[in-house]
Amino acid sequence: MSRYSRIEKVFAVMSGKGGVGKSTISALLACELARKGKRVGIMDTDITGPSIPTMFGIEGERPEVLNPGIFPVKTKTLGIEVMSINLILERPDQPVIWRGPLLSKALQELWEETVWNDPEVLILDVPPGTGDIPLTILQTIPLTGVVIVFSPQDVTLLVVRKAIHMVEDLGKPIVGLVENMSFTICPHCHGKITLFGEERGHLVASQMSLPFLGSLPLDPELAKHCDAGTIEEYENEELSSIAAKVLEK
Amino acid sequence: MSRYSRIEKVFAVMSGKGGVGKSTISALLACELARKGKRVGIMDTDITGPSIPTMFGIEGERPEVLNPGIFPVKTKTLGIEVMSINLILERPDQPVIWRGPLLSKALQELWEETVWNDPEVLILDVPPGTGDIPLTILQTIPLTGVVIVFSPQDVTLLVVRKAIHMVEDLGKPIVGLVENMSFTICPHCHGKITLFGEERGHLVASQMSLPFLGSLPLDPELAKHCDAGTIEEYENEELSSIAAKVLEK
Repeated sequence: MSRYSRIEKVFAVMSGKGGVGKSTISALLACELARKGKRVGIMDTDITGPSIPTMFGIEGERPEVLNPGIFPVKTKTLGIEVMSINLILERPDQPVIWRGPLLSKALQELWEETVWNDPEVLILDVPPGTGDIPLTILQTIPLTGVVIVFSPQDVTLLVVRKAIHMVEDLGKPIVGLVENMSFTICPHCHGKITLFGEERGHLVASQMSLPFLGSLPLDPELAKHCDAGTIEEYENEELSSIAAKVLEK
Repeated sequence: MSRYSRIEKVFAVMSGKGGVGKSTISALLACELARKGKRVGIMDTDITGPSIPTMFGIEGERPEVLNPGIFPVKTKTLGIEVMSINLILERPDQPVIWRGPLLSKALQELWEETVWNDPEVLILDVPPGTGDIPLTILQTIPLTGVVIVFSPQDVTLLVVRKAIHMVEDLGKPIVGLVENMSFTICPHCHGKITLFGEERGHLVASQMSLPFLGSLPLDPELAKHCDAGTIEEYENEELSSIAAKVLEK
């Protein structure tokens, strides 16, 4: 963190598995905390596959670069401070083809150079896997806690358990588990559809002796908001309850 | 590749984005090619988040290690040869917390030491991102072609475009695009539900001047087969047509 910034709490949103909705939940959590009156920042640490700027509709903006420091972009509605490698790239569809040490170095520079405008809570969106970036974050960033996201499929759970063990091996506190995409509601008949397997958030959490924070559905409305860059307009009660539990930490 | 192995065609299944179904499609493609009479191998190159052994119900088996070489495990129904780092780990939920260069080295060793029993086609399941493992595969493994998987969400497409540019920058041929999870069918009213956004495979493919191979639904039946280790029992027509197009390459 830049010596010009002060942040009270830093939460990392991790999974190990890709595509379970880490970025979406990071963004939603940031919005919900902002709605609860907190000053919030979000840092997209997925250097090779960032999606946070698109969700907030700020992918065309550029952070102000001064000497010293890079200044985050503010979101339109809730004024969340956002930093992402994609805000610095010339073309957002440009691949960042870097090997691990360079990735870690880029992350560390982004972390050190960003001058946050005094957020109380910072959310870190962590890329999948248990490789360089998650490792660097767990080893070098002072984390208040880690939020683990998973979807209720056995194949996914195996990979998520690896991530949980990694966090525990490195001695970092886990705030709890969020089950995502556990079901969807049919827009035609309003029936509930379990897409990947039965909901089992409580079970998985108790098996691993970790707190369960809540379940979120796969909501096509949310996907539309993510694509339209209007994620700040999406709200739901379960999300609000999850954010409250995170804040207690 | 071990000098004791001969393989005619090697296809990499990539996406850039996590959770769009690369592993599932790699496994389904292997099954479909085996059903078409080919001798098939599949290599899970996702060293930090492997899921191929679970899908085939062989996560409890161990490859035979002789001097020289490691011998793949064969699947129960179709006799597909499978190699995955998870088959070598003592506990499958053990995290592989390695930095990039070590990951690449592990992959290269797995590639060099595996003695395939003469498959005609080898499918490589490539992890998300544009980092170490995808880079090592594109740079060091002689690929017949790359199959790109994506789901129809703008946020995803941005990341997938990065992967496509990476493959093109490194001069490797792209076989075509597969759109996954484009819709689901409600089990109650049988209505069609677009989960992430309208299907747009043809459009995306033509925008990028790449062949379009087909669209697959998010099918809860398939998720059950993946969890139960019975993916070899799952078939559908669209899949068969996609496999035929890949084989033409």
